Amino acid sequence: MAHQDQDWFTETCDEAGTKFSLMLHRKLHAEQTPYQKIEVYETTHFGNLLVLDGFIMLSARDNFIYHEMMSHTALFTHPAPHRVLIVGGGDCGCLREVLKHSSVETAELVELDERVTRVSERYFPELCASNDDARARLVFTDGIEWVARAAAGAYDVVIVDSTDPVGQAARLFQAPFYADCRRVLGADGLLIVQSESPLIHLSLIRSIRSEMRKAGFDDLSTLHFPQCTYPSGWWSATLAGGRLSHAEFRERGARCRPFTTRYYNADIHRAALARPEFVHFNEE
Amino acid sequence: MAHQDQDWFTETCDEAGTKFSLMLHRKLHAEQTPYQKIEVYETTHFGNLLVLDGFIMLSARDNFIYHEMMSHTALFTHPAPHRVLIVGGGDCGCLREVLKHSSVETAELVELDERVTRVSERYFPELCASNDDARARLVFTDGIEWVARAAAGAYDVVIVDSTDPVGQAARLFQAPFYADCRRVLGADGLLIVQSESPLIHLSLIRSIRSEMRKAGFDDLSTLHFPQCTYPSGWWSATLAGGRLSHAEFRERGARCRPFTTRYYNADIHRAALARPEFVHFNEE
Repeated sequence: MAHQDQDWFTETCDEAGTKFSLMLHRKLHAEQTPYQKIEVYETTHFGNLLVLDGFIMLSARDNFIYHEMMSHTALFTHPAPHRVLIVGGGDCGCLREVLKHSSVETAELVELDERVTRVSERYFPELCASNDDARARLVFTDGIEWVARAAAGAYDVVIVDSTDPVGQAARLFQAPFYADCRRVLGADGLLIVQSESPLIHLSLIRSIRSEMRKAGFDDLSTLHFPQCTYPSGWWSATLAGGRLSHAEFRERGARCRPFTTRYYNADIHRAALARPEFVHFNEE
Repeated sequence: MAHQDQDWFTETCDEAGTKFSLMLHRKLHAEQTPYQKIEVYETTHFGNLLVLDGFIMLSARDNFIYHEMMSHTALFTHPAPHRVLIVGGGDCGCLREVLKHSSVETAELVELDERVTRVSERYFPELCASNDDARARLVFTDGIEWVARAAAGAYDVVIVDSTDPVGQAARLFQAPFYADCRRVLGADGLLIVQSESPLIHLSLIRSIRSEMRKAGFDDLSTLHFPQCTYPSGWWSATLAGGRLSHAEFRERGARCRPFTTRYYNADIHRAALARPEFVHFNEE
């Protein structure tokens, strides 16, 4: 639920009893697509703001944390990521980060709603800066069907950059989809999914991990990072699969990476793996 | 600035152009003291909420992160913390954490406004659970004057659990106060201060560190942790002084601590020391 009064965009988080508001200069864009309502606002302090069905997807100011942590943690954990699939992520922020890795040969982005990408190209051109990279392929179709039809072992890393688990997106948090992800990943293959707030969605994180286990993923790590514009200001990603312990990521590669980041580095990668004392998982 | 409509408490962060709101059951308490306006609300999802002059100080649900990180990081960095001073912190949450350390012989809390403590005893009894500990001493006076008059080397650890740097509290962020802290700390002595949000107050963090250096503190570490009810949901504490590198904290002691915590542990301590890539300090 959200409302916009004259000067503020406000998102309500019903399950936490909280609201978060950003001060606005103006509304830049609004449209109803076959899938959702897309809005873009110009905020006073957080740059442009992308909103889908009333929920904040990203701000120009703080999206770097989310996109870097969804991408580089997985790509520096896989020993040699060549073929990457991004499910969702139509704003193209993860795609840009993935393509910073010279090992990547193909990066496919499968987004249901082409309009999210077209709107992002216009209002968040910095996130779409690598869309013309020869290794990038943008496909506008249902990611769940795409994964169901993809060949076994087709990908090294699958990144699920989804909206919250409501409506269509709910299936992205369930075992049948994770089983398909497991099939399309090679033996070293890694899945990473955005997994909501450790403070207010811990039961959902437990559910995601349980569904992943049902799908055959034995090695799971939930990583934590700040994300100001998401509920509670604290977010997580859950990494599944791979042949090596997630703690044994390519730390030297991360430390000597030949590209710039704004949040991610090797120390931050290791820090994100630390488990707060109150976070317990049933399976442990 | 804050306002309360029928169902929500809202705090506005002018410098970030954001608002954060918590859904309420009811207002439990309001009074104007000689120093500030104290309010307590019962929220729907975050338990009781303490508000000073319209700014959220803590919620029952998430204050454990702040209090543990302000206390245990310093006490597990000092080789043998016996004498601890808490400046501010009238809610007594830091005092409770400090007294979990059996090495602590005296823990003095110097709070300007006795009413903050009395209100906390009533509405946050869990935070005041150790106020009757024989090692605890509560003094209601000006912390800056207290430190100015204290004997050289009187303390091993000084914790500055202050409000934002406005009004009276502004002096707690400046070199003359830090110089007094340095004087009352022994050669191994450690100062830790709450230092606001890495995302929206980075220039203030730089200023705090600069003031600390002016006061003669050479070794500085800014630690990061989530804090849902503070602006941006991400907060910091800055540690100053000591004879050892802050990275060489008593990790084994932290790992084998004989008391419970809800956020802090040895991995989280190390994680909090990781510096995000965008965080640069002039002095480095």
